[in-house]
Amino acid sequence: MNEAEVPPVTAAILVIGDEILSGRTKDKNIGHIAERLTEVGIDLKEVRVVPDEEDEIVAALNALRVKFDYVFTTGGIGPTHDDITADAVAKAFGVGIDVDPRARDMLLEYIAEKDLNEARLRMARIPFGASLVVNPVSKAPGFNIGNVYVMAGVPRIMHAMLEAIIPTLRTGVPMLSRTVLANAKEGDIAAPLGDIAKRNRDVIIGSYPFLGETGPNTNIVVRSRSEARVEAVAALVAEMLVAVGAAKVS
Amino acid sequence: MNEAEVPPVTAAILVIGDEILSGRTKDKNIGHIAERLTEVGIDLKEVRVVPDEEDEIVAALNALRVKFDYVFTTGGIGPTHDDITADAVAKAFGVGIDVDPRARDMLLEYIAEKDLNEARLRMARIPFGASLVVNPVSKAPGFNIGNVYVMAGVPRIMHAMLEAIIPTLRTGVPMLSRTVLANAKEGDIAAPLGDIAKRNRDVIIGSYPFLGETGPNTNIVVRSRSEARVEAVAALVAEMLVAVGAAKVS
Repeated sequence: MNEAEVPPVTAAILVIGDEILSGRTKDKNIGHIAERLTEVGIDLKEVRVVPDEEDEIVAALNALRVKFDYVFTTGGIGPTHDDITADAVAKAFGVGIDVDPRARDMLLEYIAEKDLNEARLRMARIPFGASLVVNPVSKAPGFNIGNVYVMAGVPRIMHAMLEAIIPTLRTGVPMLSRTVLANAKEGDIAAPLGDIAKRNRDVIIGSYPFLGETGPNTNIVVRSRSEARVEAVAALVAEMLVAVGAAKVS
Repeated sequence: MNEAEVPPVTAAILVIGDEILSGRTKDKNIGHIAERLTEVGIDLKEVRVVPDEEDEIVAALNALRVKFDYVFTTGGIGPTHDDITADAVAKAFGVGIDVDPRARDMLLEYIAEKDLNEARLRMARIPFGASLVVNPVSKAPGFNIGNVYVMAGVPRIMHAMLEAIIPTLRTGVPMLSRTVLANAKEGDIAAPLGDIAKRNRDVIIGSYPFLGETGPNTNIVVRSRSEARVEAVAALVAEMLVAVGAAKVS
């Protein structure tokens, strides 16, 4: 199959955590997951951040899991009272939940049996029918049920879990991108850029203004699953920039 | 009124932008808005990130604006073909949109009339009935319609717009927080912490593990609109930490 025949694979992220909504913790997971999914050809189409409230988690999860091929959650799988993600996911799927012997064994690789108190055992509570996602950092596993992947919120642990998950996913043809630095103000090139976009609807052209050292500047990003099309349209953009008198640096 | 009698004011953020979902741009706006809203007593309850697709923007905006007191959007109000936020907002509200003379005048403060081409005039397209949000950085305004505030995606401009908006908002009693460094692993204090949470349901207690210089550690965050209750429950947490043998540093 060539890239046009492979159906796109879509995903959403559900970030669970009061600490993100209060601004106390600045999320670093969304950007990382977005980048990795893009690299393997999965299109991230939506992100939601919800508080540590069961009803909100259940509602968001059920909205996202029917709409996208995969949903990745982060946060709320620790040992404390505010860690309610596993229970909320079980509720969303309408399944039971209990301490999973496989998960308990994983915890015992890291935690001495005498320290495996009731709170820590909460981290082994896994919805019925889920498979486990290994956690090479601190052992307490994530899990996968249906098309939902439940990961830790601590970035280092989440990164490791995501790398364990990715090889198991159906992936698509990666979306490729080429960035052309316009050396022009966005408003000076918007019309010819819009013309290029109109004539090349099979590629996605984004225009991203930023304040550079020499004043307002713009990055033009051309995206497609076809390398040939990315290169061809990036070349059109570069030619346009020369034609309107903007220097081209790519 | 004391803090118990003031109804909470709620908000959501809608981030509009393919560049966030592709991972190319790491969002810095969510954390900033979250922090500022918390400071002024507005509870951020949900965040969504959607692509530059009209149907998705309209659907997310209509879901959020009926559910929360305020919705803040970022991104998609520039001069290029991929800037479709203003049109999507007009569609969500079922109102028309056209170049607004007030917005055009603002643009002319920054852009010479000869440079005010059709593309730049797009930045003056404002839904009918909206009021403008000033942009002291580059003049192209945001706007407010109903309970929705439309802001730029460039952080420096967004910050300035948000500061212009905040004094016009109904605000609540700020949620106060006190962080107690546990000097303990989360799993060692989860049970007594859960007991404190159960006996003090009027405050929110969050437990945030992190990898410190001396190994796994935990921040306990106590939140309430009542300073007295924050201090009282933070003191209970500190006492508990001493009782279980964890050092207390606050």
